[in-house]
Formats: sequence, C-alpha cells, structure tokens
Amino acid sequence: MTFQRIAIIGLGLLGGSIGLAVRANLPGAVTTGYDHDPATRKRAATRGLADKVCDSAAEAVREADLVIFCVPPLAMAEAALAIAEALPPGALVSDVGSSKVAVAKALGEALPGHAIIPAHPVAGTENSGPDAGFAALFHNRWCIITPPADADLQLLTKLTQFWEALGANVEIMDAPHHDLVLAVTSHLPHLIAYTIVGTASDLEEVTQSEVIKYSAGGFRDFTRIAASDPTMWRDVFLSNKDAVLEMLQRFSEDLTALQRAIRVGDGDALFDHFTRTRAIRRSIIAEGQDDARPDFGRGDHGDG
Amino acid sequence: MTFQRIAIIGLGLLGGSIGLAVRANLPGAVTTGYDHDPATRKRAATRGLADKVCDSAAEAVREADLVIFCVPPLAMAEAALAIAEALPPGALVSDVGSSKVAVAKALGEALPGHAIIPAHPVAGTENSGPDAGFAALFHNRWCIITPPADADLQLLTKLTQFWEALGANVEIMDAPHHDLVLAVTSHLPHLIAYTIVGTASDLEEVTQSEVIKYSAGGFRDFTRIAASDPTMWRDVFLSNKDAVLEMLQRFSEDLTALQRAIRVGDGDALFDHFTRTRAIRRSIIAEGQDDARPDFGRGDHGDG
Repeated sequence: MTFQRIAIIGLGLLGGSIGLAVRANLPGAVTTGYDHDPATRKRAATRGLADKVCDSAAEAVREADLVIFCVPPLAMAEAALAIAEALPPGALVSDVGSSKVAVAKALGEALPGHAIIPAHPVAGTENSGPDAGFAALFHNRWCIITPPADADLQLLTKLTQFWEALGANVEIMDAPHHDLVLAVTSHLPHLIAYTIVGTASDLEEVTQSEVIKYSAGGFRDFTRIAASDPTMWRDVFLSNKDAVLEMLQRFSEDLTALQRAIRVGDGDALFDHFTRTRAIRRSIIAEGQDDARPDFGRGDHGDG
Repeated sequence: MTFQRIAIIGLGLLGGSIGLAVRANLPGAVTTGYDHDPATRKRAATRGLADKVCDSAAEAVREADLVIFCVPPLAMAEAALAIAEALPPGALVSDVGSSKVAVAKALGEALPGHAIIPAHPVAGTENSGPDAGFAALFHNRWCIITPPADADLQLLTKLTQFWEALGANVEIMDAPHHDLVLAVTSHLPHLIAYTIVGTASDLEEVTQSEVIKYSAGGFRDFTRIAASDPTMWRDVFLSNKDAVLEMLQRFSEDLTALQRAIRVGDGDALFDHFTRTRAIRRSIIAEGQDDARPDFGRGDHGDG
C-alpha cells in the first residue's frame, strides 16, 4: 500500500497534476496543498488541485506520510526550511525537480535526519501555473527516482508504487547520471530553443511579424519549449551547470562541423548526417514517447 | 480563371499534395505527373496523385499551361532541361523550392525565353515520398511567390489564384528577402535540430536508449524536423548557403552569451531572455500558425 496522506508544496503544472492524478488514481488517499502565492492557492482551491489547500506549508505537511516539493530547483531549500519544524518524523520527503544532485543536497541540508528520496517525472507541457495541470500528465511517461545510497528500501518501494499508480513507468538511477541524461534530453534542447527564438526576435533584416507568419517552416516547433516557465528553467540551468555546459560544448563542436560542411559545399557530409538522425525519431515513436502522426498530429492534417 | 492543365514534376510530399489538392479544389482542372523514380510513379498512380502519371517528364508537360517542379533545389536544373524541348511556349513554369534565388537562376538558365515565376508554399511535414502527401497540406499556410522584376502580371495573378484555390494565403516577396526570411524561420531550425539529434546519438556517457526513453523532456520536439528528407535539406543548405551561414553566426553569438550567463551564474540574464521568448509563441498561435493545445495537442492530454 502506497502513501495515503500526500502534501504537495507548490501548486503549478506539476503539483496540480499530482493532486488531480492522486484523486483520479488513488481512491482513499488525501492530499493537502500549499503554494507561496496567494492567488495560486485560491485558484488551486477552486480547481480542487488538492483536497485541502492550506494557508501555510507547515499546516499542509503536519499529517503527511509523503511530502512532494513541486517548486523550482533553487526554491527547494527555502521551501524545505519552512516545513522543518512541522514535518512528521516518519514522512518521506520527495520532489519533482529537473536537476537531482543539487536538489538532493538542498533538501538534505534543510531537513537533516529525515528520509529523502528525490524523483523526477519526465513530463510536462509548455504551460505553467495552477491552471496548467491535468490528471493524465504522467500517463506512459517515465519517472526517474534517484535514491541516495542509504535509502530505506520500503520507502523506495512505496514511492515507486505511488508513481506507478499515477500512470508513470519508474526507473531508478543515481543522481549524477540523471543530471547528465537530462542535460542532453531536456536541458540542452530547452537552451537551444530559447536561443533560436531570441535570435529570430532580434533580427533587423527580417521583421518579427515575418518570423511569426512563416514559422510553419520549422521555427514554430522551437517556440513551444521556449514558452516554458522562465523561473523554473533559470533554476535548472544554474543547478545543473556542469552537465549542461559539457553537453553544450559537444553541441557547439557538432554545429561547427556542419557549418564547415555547408561553407565548403560538402553535400555528402550533410546527407550522411541527415540520414543518421532520421532513425532516432522512429525509435522514439516505437517506444510510445511521441505521436507518429505528421506534425505531432496538430492541426487539420490527414490523408485525403 | 486559373490554370487548367497542370503538370507536376516530382511526386513526393509536395507534388503529391498539389495533385490531391487540385482534384479537391479545382474541378475541371487536369493534372499530369512525373517522377524520375519508377517506384514512386507506380505508387503515385495507385494513390491518384495526378490524373495521369506519365513515363517521361516531356510527356507530362506537353499540353500543360502550368508546370510545377517539386524536386529538391539542386535537382531543378536537370529536371528543367528534361522538359525544355516539350514545354509549350505559353506555359508558366513554377516550383515549390525552399530557396528561391538559386532555383530562379537554375530554371532561367535551363529554360531561356520561358515565363518563370518561382514560388514556395511554407508547408510540409516530416514525412516524404509518394505516400506522404494529402490535399489539406496548404490550408491556412502561406505561399510565398517570388516573381522576377519583369514577370507577366496576368500569369502572376493566375498563379496567385491557383495557390489560393488550394487553400493557401499568398504573399509576394523578392527572392533574396525570401531566402533571408526562410533562413531564420526554417533553414536554421532544421540545421539546429539535425545537429542536436546527432549530438545526442553520439554520446558515450548516455546511451541512445536513454535518449529515446527520456525524450519527452524536450528532445523529441527536435526529432520531428530532424526526420525530414535528407536530400531536400542537403540541397536547401547548399543552395541558400550565404543566408544560412549569416543566421548561424548570429545564433552562435547568442548561444555563447547564454552559455556565459550559465557559467557565471547570471540568473537575471537567463530569466530576462526566457521571459522575452514566451511572447512570440502567443503571437504564432494568435495568427493561426500553430496549435494552442499543450504539447501541440499530441497524445492524450486534456484537463481532468
């Protein structure tokens, strides 16, 4: 039997989705929720993101057997300090942060002596805030749990069952490897997307209205993830700095190689590279991690 | 009254979609089609991509009043030479190529004395070949026509009406400006996507299976356009080299600035940049160039 009294600290996209997913999938479990923003608390109460939305984090965790921090990575320390006094000794502390080494360290320092098992559901959309969450967010998505070496195995099993109940597939990984994997599958793509959208906005020869108008040529795909929550992503890059800079260095080298191939007119090098990158999408679709329909299935496309 | 006898040279995603769109939207018009690949011709005939699929390009154009080349940019010259003898004097020659200065030059040299008005429908999917096309591909997409300075205005009007009949919105632009606009809205995004997918495939510390598994964190968005036709994209980069290299230079400068902000821990610079890039997606959605639903509407997302 997994956790039954779940406190959710932070009621944005992730926290709100957890609350809705618990209600949909764990009958009998009770959720409490808190967000430092009063407007978010109010909206969360209206949408029923938690069974009870509390006016303080301490109140939210007082009877919890699981506390999940759903705040940006660099806000974890302060959020954890705010519950230190009220946290029941037997409760498990977890989170949903996108970088795990830094978050584990912050939680450990703020809550010494408590059981802490960080986790990261690899799921999300470009929307944020209390209106963004939905119960199905974790369906068929991976949740990576990064237990410390001395983690309590019973608590680890319960946390695994919790995420599986919400529809996720669970993978166990050590925190440094998580940070490297996510640097390439998530953090670098976001940084690149943020960059190119910025570059396109700053041109003098091409107006912003032209960029918007002709975005269906490819650009619009980048704008989705470049619309993600700025605070969250600032924190991700700062809290996973080394792995992000390492991946960025490799990306820059590869880009320079393709740039050179264009400059010298080496069509074979371009063709070979472009052929190789086709296969990986087929695998992503085969593994159920993306939609096989053209253009992600958006719009009115279809045969006919 | 727009064109009535349309010859389509190249029966892949674009050519096939034009054939299907003509049948759906221009009753009375007759299409002929040709593709240099016999297997594509056979499949095109089965799907009915043209009313008549011919065994030679010359045969396809012999009675045409409009010939549209739907082949990769660097294949235009050879395809045009193949119809030079058979092309009726009054027929308009056009194309769908993604770079316009180079294609206009190639067509002009191959078909001296003929009326040529290049065009570029800004529409497509990651799929290619004779099975990829569909009649609605051009609905609410832009088609940029790049007439030469001495273009016949009556033919330009007829070509505009042709694309409007297929559901597109037409914009007139000069070819060099088109190439600059598309370098940023389409060519650079494809180059970046091809690069990052290659980078992720080549890592030693992170396996390809991990990249695929956790691609929902952002990476998968890039794999879609990195699955586009390699021959077409090789030709685009080589035929629009100067504009692509110029945009790439600016992108690299912007990326270096964000890299530095991460390295020195300048959270304010990151936050400001990430906030600015949010607005452009809202504009793209407001202009009907993308789907407002989270994750492009793919998968089983929804409220609840």
